[in-house]
Amino acid sequence: MSCSLQHCDGFVPGCNIRTDLALEANEIVRQRSAEDIPGVKAEASEENGIVINRVSILTPEAGARLGKPVGNYVTIEAPELRKKSASMQENISQVLARELEQMSGLGETKEQSVLVIGLGNWNVTPDSLGPKVVEDLLVTRHIFKMQGNGNLIQKGFRRVAAVSPGVMGLTGVETGEIVQGIAARVNPDMIIAVDALASSRMDRLHTTIQLADTGVIPGSGVKNERMGINQSTMGIPVIAIGVPTVVEASTIAGEAMDALVEEMKNQASEGESSLAGILENMDWNQRREMVKEVLGEYAGQLMVTPKEIDTFMDDISLAVAGGLNSSLHPGMAKTDADKFLQ
Amino acid sequence: MSCSLQHCDGFVPGCNIRTDLALEANEIVRQRSAEDIPGVKAEASEENGIVINRVSILTPEAGARLGKPVGNYVTIEAPELRKKSASMQENISQVLARELEQMSGLGETKEQSVLVIGLGNWNVTPDSLGPKVVEDLLVTRHIFKMQGNGNLIQKGFRRVAAVSPGVMGLTGVETGEIVQGIAARVNPDMIIAVDALASSRMDRLHTTIQLADTGVIPGSGVKNERMGINQSTMGIPVIAIGVPTVVEASTIAGEAMDALVEEMKNQASEGESSLAGILENMDWNQRREMVKEVLGEYAGQLMVTPKEIDTFMDDISLAVAGGLNSSLHPGMAKTDADKFLQ
Amino acid sequence: MSCSLQHCDGFVPGCNIRTDLALEANEIVRQRSAEDIPGVKAEASEENGIVINRVSILTPEAGARLGKPVGNYVTIEAPELRKKSASMQENISQVLARELEQMSGLGETKEQSVLVIGLGNWNVTPDSLGPKVVEDLLVTRHIFKMQGNGNLIQKGFRRVAAVSPGVMGLTGVETGEIVQGIAARVNPDMIIAVDALASSRMDRLHTTIQLADTGVIPGSGVKNERMGINQSTMGIPVIAIGVPTVVEASTIAGEAMDALVEEMKNQASEGESSLAGILENMDWNQRREMVKEVLGEYAGQLMVTPKEIDTFMDDISLAVAGGLNSSLHPGMAKTDADKFLQ
Amino acid sequence: MSCSLQHCDGFVPGCNIRTDLALEANEIVRQRSAEDIPGVKAEASEENGIVINRVSILTPEAGARLGKPVGNYVTIEAPELRKKSASMQENISQVLARELEQMSGLGETKEQSVLVIGLGNWNVTPDSLGPKVVEDLLVTRHIFKMQGNGNLIQKGFRRVAAVSPGVMGLTGVETGEIVQGIAARVNPDMIIAVDALASSRMDRLHTTIQLADTGVIPGSGVKNERMGINQSTMGIPVIAIGVPTVVEASTIAGEAMDALVEEMKNQASEGESSLAGILENMDWNQRREMVKEVLGEYAGQLMVTPKEIDTFMDDISLAVAGGLNSSLHPGMAKTDADKFLQ
Repeated sequence: MSCSLQHCDGFVPGCNIRTDLALEANEIVRQRSAEDIPGVKAEASEENGIVINRVSILTPEAGARLGKPVGNYVTIEAPELRKKSASMQENISQVLARELEQMSGLGETKEQSVLVIGLGNWNVTPDSLGPKVVEDLLVTRHIFKMQGNGNLIQKGFRRVAAVSPGVMGLTGVETGEIVQGIAARVNPDMIIAVDALASSRMDRLHTTIQLADTGVIPGSGVKNERMGINQSTMGIPVIAIGVPTVVEASTIAGEAMDALVEEMKNQASEGESSLAGILENMDWNQRREMVKEVLGEYAGQLMVTPKEIDTFMDDISLAVAGGLNSSLHPGMAKTDADKFLQ
Repeated sequence: MSCSLQHCDGFVPGCNIRTDLALEANEIVRQRSAEDIPGVKAEASEENGIVINRVSILTPEAGARLGKPVGNYVTIEAPELRKKSASMQENISQVLARELEQMSGLGETKEQSVLVIGLGNWNVTPDSLGPKVVEDLLVTRHIFKMQGNGNLIQKGFRRVAAVSPGVMGLTGVETGEIVQGIAARVNPDMIIAVDALASSRMDRLHTTIQLADTGVIPGSGVKNERMGINQSTMGIPVIAIGVPTVVEASTIAGEAMDALVEEMKNQASEGESSLAGILENMDWNQRREMVKEVLGEYAGQLMVTPKEIDTFMDDISLAVAGGLNSSLHPGMAKTDADKFLQ
Repeated sequence: MSCSLQHCDGFVPGCNIRTDLALEANEIVRQRSAEDIPGVKAEASEENGIVINRVSILTPEAGARLGKPVGNYVTIEAPELRKKSASMQENISQVLARELEQMSGLGETKEQSVLVIGLGNWNVTPDSLGPKVVEDLLVTRHIFKMQGNGNLIQKGFRRVAAVSPGVMGLTGVETGEIVQGIAARVNPDMIIAVDALASSRMDRLHTTIQLADTGVIPGSGVKNERMGINQSTMGIPVIAIGVPTVVEASTIAGEAMDALVEEMKNQASEGESSLAGILENMDWNQRREMVKEVLGEYAGQLMVTPKEIDTFMDDISLAVAGGLNSSLHPGMAKTDADKFLQ
Repeated sequence: MSCSLQHCDGFVPGCNIRTDLALEANEIVRQRSAEDIPGVKAEASEENGIVINRVSILTPEAGARLGKPVGNYVTIEAPELRKKSASMQENISQVLARELEQMSGLGETKEQSVLVIGLGNWNVTPDSLGPKVVEDLLVTRHIFKMQGNGNLIQKGFRRVAAVSPGVMGLTGVETGEIVQGIAARVNPDMIIAVDALASSRMDRLHTTIQLADTGVIPGSGVKNERMGINQSTMGIPVIAIGVPTVVEASTIAGEAMDALVEEMKNQASEGESSLAGILENMDWNQRREMVKEVLGEYAGQLMVTPKEIDTFMDDISLAVAGGLNSSLHPGMAKTDADKFLQ
């Protein structure tokens, strides 16, 4: 009995959970299938309390099973971030800078100009990651325009522009269209898109950063916004940087049911077939109906967040902006940037 | 097999759900017991799309079963509030004003002075109801002090003071102690305490107002803050006004399990005893462990909120402040208040 | 001795005052010259406590003297707005809607689509007018795209998109370039640009709305952002809507000096020539130096605002958004819009 | 021709300027009188780019001339703070901690408990210093209550409570009364009151911290709130910590006039008596009228602030909270506090 993240028959753990992390999609599908997924390469390493997971989706088939496009995904996890450790914030910025350089090739060619897109709605706290990061970036395109390239590039600064285009519900325009329009004028060599993500696990909220060379679909899950921001729509490489800031309430409800079913299976004596029968017959559609009943008509809009979300958003935004600034402006030592910004 | 909201044996629907609404506590316990609870009087009425529920807890035994103190609870529900209907906001303010006058006797004796306490943390969006309402109140105590009583009372204004004392995690002091200290100086005839509540149902968030003549326990559920703000601690009547703004994530998880168990029971053919046996043996403690597993170590801090919470908080705060202003200052027509405030 | 707003010889009242209002520029230059300015047509009317000023700059020469482009400017002043009068807010919205329809011709041709640009920085309170108004607009372009035109236009809704592009200091891109890029994709028939303005008079803050068919130069005064958002750069009509939210500190300092000089002149007995001599010789450059000395190195960044600026911004944003919504969507009655937005 | 800060005859530089800094009051009065003020001891020192001024007002006469109560004032100035230098923020925290220990004697007796009062309005950006600092404090009183004193004191933590009581305009109660009420319940050995101040000089905004052992009068300048928070009203020592965040617009206007008059005096040839005569006869009342004319009816409510005030408030609040935390909890190393806060 196989199933994808999008479709499940019967009660299969993890079925139909919403996650924007390739790492979690892989975890869930592997757990379900009880085998490694062909076409997916995954490896993990650890340094100074930071866990780095690398998941590569190599084939369209694997992509379909995980519900993610083919490409490379790096996840940087630091549970310590929640404890407001300043040194950990510094560390994670450095790891992010390094991984971003590797994925993008930015470190090598300083002449490349970059457009950073801060996706999301600055008025909805858990959706404000992109705009918050953009505010803390060192943008330089206008200064290059006034001073010319030579000197700034020598000093190790790169031409960087950054825009927060808003969300379709507020603009009336698909975000991808707005980005196309801006990119056509700014003419960058690369786009970096920063966005808040949904996770399937509470402990990943505000402690995990995902990089992907696949780009991003703004407001995925929301029906009517489907234009991706990626190499094929933009014509240049697009790196996506995301941080999970919410778990959908339906994920919590679904996982609670999974846990209960697992426990029941464990307790059912081996000869008992009735329970198995019930579980076989109770398929995903029924479960989805139950979730709907529990959550009411607003189900799709319900988010689970930690109580201290405001502080957590501030901290992780600073860490992401720090990493971006370091890799975008290799010559930027802190004091120099201070002066540069005057 | 009986159980209270606080303690359950076996899988009983609604067991151990967190709700601050007497209406919901009664609903849940009645559903469980499949009977009316002795010592509880409940009635509902409807006017112009607003449902008014009145629950009176008459005996300590009934209070223990519902997990609420003996007293009178009025719940004003207006699902239309979510749709940003200005006229509904006006209507609910009027109903609130009327119910508050009835419960408090405020309408009759204008000489009574009132201290409004805005409970909660102004930096945590779903907990900011109290401070937000206080900001929109017409406070007059300082003006009475300058101008003397006679004239203002004749014009229909009452002596009102209002304070947002913060939360124990930020002050280091039990909120009840701070209120006692302030009340000892301000010397009011009555306290009205405004606070954000937890509900068990998503559709009640930001659409429901509860009034209670029982006072309130700030941060109930948080272990170390237990001093109530009520007649017995304050020595004067205390009316509590609350609006549910969150559902705890553990409530969602618990309800999902309940729904699944109910469904299974329905599907189990009558002769099957194994399932019933499993359910019998799987008691609340096990379920709590499962919920914990699903939600991780931060379980107690996880809240489910609608995505548009910022707007919803603004709207309901205005409606509550409007109702309070009307009943506190019976002579206050809008234009008069404008001039008064200059 | 003539002088423009930009350049003054000797002590001339109002010299070098910063104002974005054509009304004030005209007031100041007329006062200085003690005559009507050729090429400027000005008239005022009053209705229900709202003063409407119409200033038309007819010739480039007049434009140069007033420091404003040739075109039509309408100023709607309602001092009552500061008193939080809800009915006045409603009134001013209606007047704005009517004037906007007249200036733009929007009322007649519902098929015209509009792109609203919310200029300014949402994180700097007095500069946040544009983004705040955009948030309260009814955007429809995405809904037209899904549902097709016919039905919505019949119901009286227009195709509206709205973007807040940020400010050059945060994006690194001239705002005009971003708007060009977006307009090239959205392809509207008209642009309406909303921005916060500087006034020369405190009593106009948050009580005055200026409409102009000349477009706008984002961040005027800031040296390095000069690309206008107007018909010549955008290729379509551009209406600018602005509200003064700050007076520059240097304006206050300059006006204080003016007031003092005027008083001295009045007091100097007629035979005294020494004072006149001093005033003749003390030209604008000296005065500018004095202002600089008073204000210190941050002079250009200093703003004078009323203490209650946060509330005032909210109120005037709502009034502007209300007027825009009414004129953009002629068929929009309040309740209809509620349903439409669901 | 002598004058106080409150009353001036004729045009005397600095007359009637509003400042909450003893340092500035002394500067202004000395400049005016062209002599050291008897009963005032002032000294300055410098360390690592931080200037420390110590002003002691020794006699009531000196206090009357400076418009400040008798006592000791320490001003810590670090212009670099505006440049977002993290190391300077750290330095100034340390200097603040040291000076606070010296002034309060806190370092020596760890058993002393402290109540911190965050004065001001959290919704008015330049007035939000007190509430912002309180949010970043490590409060411990509730933890002492649970765990007992011995262990925590040994670890170097002190019993600290902190409350933001609001402002009289929002509460209807004199802030001093609220603090008395809270102090009567919390029973601290010392009060530290944190408040935003007005300066007479723009370059001191957000770069200067004043400590005073004289306590504070909340909302000084506002007519109807006069009860001080000081040893005589509270019965225990009160240390005030303040940061200038605004210059009043009338100060700017007044200083501009002063600068103009000075310049005129310089330019007037010596034989000319008419100018001197005019200046003699134009006294403070006339000038105040002129300022009023320039600023309009809202004069008292107008503040001059830098454009980036939001960021500056965040930075200086963190620096003040850092200094307070260090001196209140001498045993608090960063990592320990992290764990302690869990």
